[in-house]
Amino acid sequence: MNYRMILYLLGWILNIQSVCLLLPVAVGIFYGEAQWKVFALVALASLVCGILLTLKKPKRNVFYMKEGFVTVALSWLLMSLFGAVPFYLTKEIPFYLDAVFEMASGYTTTGASILTNIEAMSQCSLFWRSFSHWIGGMGVLVFLIAIVPLTGGHVMSLMKAESPGPSVEKLVPRVRQTAFILYSIYFAMTLLEIMLLLAGGMPWFDAITTAFGTAGTGGFSVRSLSIGYYQSHYLQTVVTAFMLLFGVNFSVYYLLLSNNIKKALKSEELRWYICIVAVSIVCITWNINRQFYGGNVYEAAHNASFTVASVISTTGFAISDFSRWPTASRFILFVLMFIGANAGSTGGGIKVSRIILLVKSSLREIASIVHPRGVNVVKLDKKRVGEDVIKGTRSFFILCILIFVVSVFIVSFDGYDFATSLSAVAATLNNIGPGFELVGPVGNYAMFSPLSKIVLIFDMLAGRLELFPMLILFSPYTWKGGLGAIKRRLSWKKESM
Amino acid sequence: MNYRMILYLLGWILNIQSVCLLLPVAVGIFYGEAQWKVFALVALASLVCGILLTLKKPKRNVFYMKEGFVTVALSWLLMSLFGAVPFYLTKEIPFYLDAVFEMASGYTTTGASILTNIEAMSQCSLFWRSFSHWIGGMGVLVFLIAIVPLTGGHVMSLMKAESPGPSVEKLVPRVRQTAFILYSIYFAMTLLEIMLLLAGGMPWFDAITTAFGTAGTGGFSVRSLSIGYYQSHYLQTVVTAFMLLFGVNFSVYYLLLSNNIKKALKSEELRWYICIVAVSIVCITWNINRQFYGGNVYEAAHNASFTVASVISTTGFAISDFSRWPTASRFILFVLMFIGANAGSTGGGIKVSRIILLVKSSLREIASIVHPRGVNVVKLDKKRVGEDVIKGTRSFFILCILIFVVSVFIVSFDGYDFATSLSAVAATLNNIGPGFELVGPVGNYAMFSPLSKIVLIFDMLAGRLELFPMLILFSPYTWKGGLGAIKRRLSWKKESM
Repeated sequence: MNYRMILYLLGWILNIQSVCLLLPVAVGIFYGEAQWKVFALVALASLVCGILLTLKKPKRNVFYMKEGFVTVALSWLLMSLFGAVPFYLTKEIPFYLDAVFEMASGYTTTGASILTNIEAMSQCSLFWRSFSHWIGGMGVLVFLIAIVPLTGGHVMSLMKAESPGPSVEKLVPRVRQTAFILYSIYFAMTLLEIMLLLAGGMPWFDAITTAFGTAGTGGFSVRSLSIGYYQSHYLQTVVTAFMLLFGVNFSVYYLLLSNNIKKALKSEELRWYICIVAVSIVCITWNINRQFYGGNVYEAAHNASFTVASVISTTGFAISDFSRWPTASRFILFVLMFIGANAGSTGGGIKVSRIILLVKSSLREIASIVHPRGVNVVKLDKKRVGEDVIKGTRSFFILCILIFVVSVFIVSFDGYDFATSLSAVAATLNNIGPGFELVGPVGNYAMFSPLSKIVLIFDMLAGRLELFPMLILFSPYTWKGGLGAIKRRLSWKKESM
Repeated sequence: MNYRMILYLLGWILNIQSVCLLLPVAVGIFYGEAQWKVFALVALASLVCGILLTLKKPKRNVFYMKEGFVTVALSWLLMSLFGAVPFYLTKEIPFYLDAVFEMASGYTTTGASILTNIEAMSQCSLFWRSFSHWIGGMGVLVFLIAIVPLTGGHVMSLMKAESPGPSVEKLVPRVRQTAFILYSIYFAMTLLEIMLLLAGGMPWFDAITTAFGTAGTGGFSVRSLSIGYYQSHYLQTVVTAFMLLFGVNFSVYYLLLSNNIKKALKSEELRWYICIVAVSIVCITWNINRQFYGGNVYEAAHNASFTVASVISTTGFAISDFSRWPTASRFILFVLMFIGANAGSTGGGIKVSRIILLVKSSLREIASIVHPRGVNVVKLDKKRVGEDVIKGTRSFFILCILIFVVSVFIVSFDGYDFATSLSAVAATLNNIGPGFELVGPVGNYAMFSPLSKIVLIFDMLAGRLELFPMLILFSPYTWKGGLGAIKRRLSWKKESM
């Protein structure tokens, strides 16, 4: 394990975070809030630690997959722990664990909150909460790759560990350039949404934070009523559209920008995604129409569309209390939570492309019993999918279910009802945010026990990083002989001093 | 597709069923009930159809895996459709679909009932209901193999398609002898349970039907209160023990009988099974102790043991309304429903050995990221497990989840609550019987819509036959060009006449 390289990279993460913290400082000064000093202090502390760690670039360049996963997991843990300090110091969130929950929820773009009164928060804290979605959406290590000149084989390891989807494709041969393109698209689309929201009369502060929440598919809002606060169909429709758009694989946008429209629209994942969204909206509209909207199909379809977009893109904004909808609608939403957005988007969940591979590889199993001698290959976008990708996808799915079961097992001892326990874990593991009943759109996560909160924080991080980084960080395999190595290194350091 | 051979085997199934129907006839005569005539009539009809189909043994012996799966699926469908006729004709179950539900639930050893008043049924109908568990538990085609001299490669195909578990082992080199040994152990253990129940003062009729329900891990009882009716801790403990025993792989008993005790106790599946049962009992006892049994640990443990045994063995008997237990206990039971019993037992569910393989192969995935060059093999009982078995196990799991999701999707449109919809499908797909809330131990399945009932019947059959036979029967792959072949055959018959 190349500990020095890991520390060096963690140092850079702290540097980036300290720069990010300057934005809430500016917001605080603008609104004349005293809390800006706390943010400035934490930014300074973060910078000092960061600079100390990045002073000397390590000579040893050896960096394997394992190190990549550990670095990513530690980065995100560190960001959550550090980023939570301002909330705690300003006493806006009195318990540090709650603050970490809120921050992990922000960075992982989950949007699950422990806040009971959002409007009571200072503007700079609200801004920091929403901005963390924007940082976490595209990934901070992808950002690091884009701005810091790193060499060696570890760049791809980092990108693989942080980017979502069964296989990571580079848009252009160079990783750094790929990262840069991704961030440019991300920035441009966010800007476009802000402008469209402003055009609909949304206040500046709300427009910017809402756009951050949509772009990262996060779901924190600056209003207790979420997007339901803005009673304008135009604004809600803009958010619906952008939630769906940020759930699409960014390589589709790159293809569109490169004038490769045909290839962009041929993406099998995109087609399935559109189909799933359409079918879900139709089913839910039909299911809620009479009972909740008195037969007003337009109103029902509007609410169904917003909610489906919010859940499948794993954003978690709300305009209606879908927790009270009938069982069929709730079950569709529950399944959408797991399906999630496209690979290579900012959304969470299992990802549509993995679902396609799971379904296709299972159908192949049936075909191979009927025709035992036939050769059956699984294809995606008309290209043959390697058996190792299929194996990896299946492992991912099984691990996802295992983590889900173990998490619900622990959380259920808090004694809340069946739907609350199941949906709390589903909504955090898949980075949605709100679930059903007590953790529904009008509820929050404040009532859970500290143990449950720790489990849910783990789930959020595991979900955002696609399971493996967190599993590898906490796996005894990784650290076998690891402690011994740390001790040896320390004693070697002593000797050399 | 060798249609003639399939029809020949289906004929034998009808012959066996007509013999089985003689038992309720005898019970009806014994209790002086008029309904015996209906059973006799159906037995006769079944025999006539059966004899017509088995008059001539087909010459063509070609019989592939595909034919094996189709035969098994059709046999079980036919048995359910035919076996339901007496209930309908005696008007004890006024709707034929309900009667088929009850019968499929019997044969598949599910034990889910649409009856609202069990005590109102005639003794011969109650006997038939329970006896169907006993027939379905070990499998009717296994019985066929044991008694009918069949030749050719199709014997193993049939056994593979009907027997539970990731890989079918023959106890002795000859398939027929294996089937015979299995049925002998089954018979002897059932007899032992009847004697122990009689010794505890249970009436004859109740003892025999309860033993049938336990042996097949079915769960139909002749009392509305299920085993809770017999308020004797001795009787309840006997049933607890036998539920667990019938959930064990029968090859363990064969090894014990062959004086190979060491090897029998070394079974990894058996050890995991015992661990899961023990941990579940401890957790549930701790969870329900205060709230439901006023701190009486003995009483809580007794109820927890019975319920855990009932659910993990997929029997479905009840002595307490576990549907009202706290969320943690209910969630443990929900997970146990899916885990199920051992491979090669009469129980349902995914099976403990498959769970072991799923967990081990997923941990291997983590290890292979940490040590990419290491060779990681999955071992069970200290023997290396083939990659094809692992692949098959994973396919099984994924298909199981897919069927679960699609079924709940359809059933949830009936509008019952979340826990009812989820547990109804879980309890039928895994052949348990009772679920939570409306389908809990004091509820039943009568209220579901006809469409939901059809879905649940499919789930029961799919679960009992381990998914593939039913999937292959309804897969378009299987019948591609199949209808043409049937037409050709018919016209050829005409010509030859």
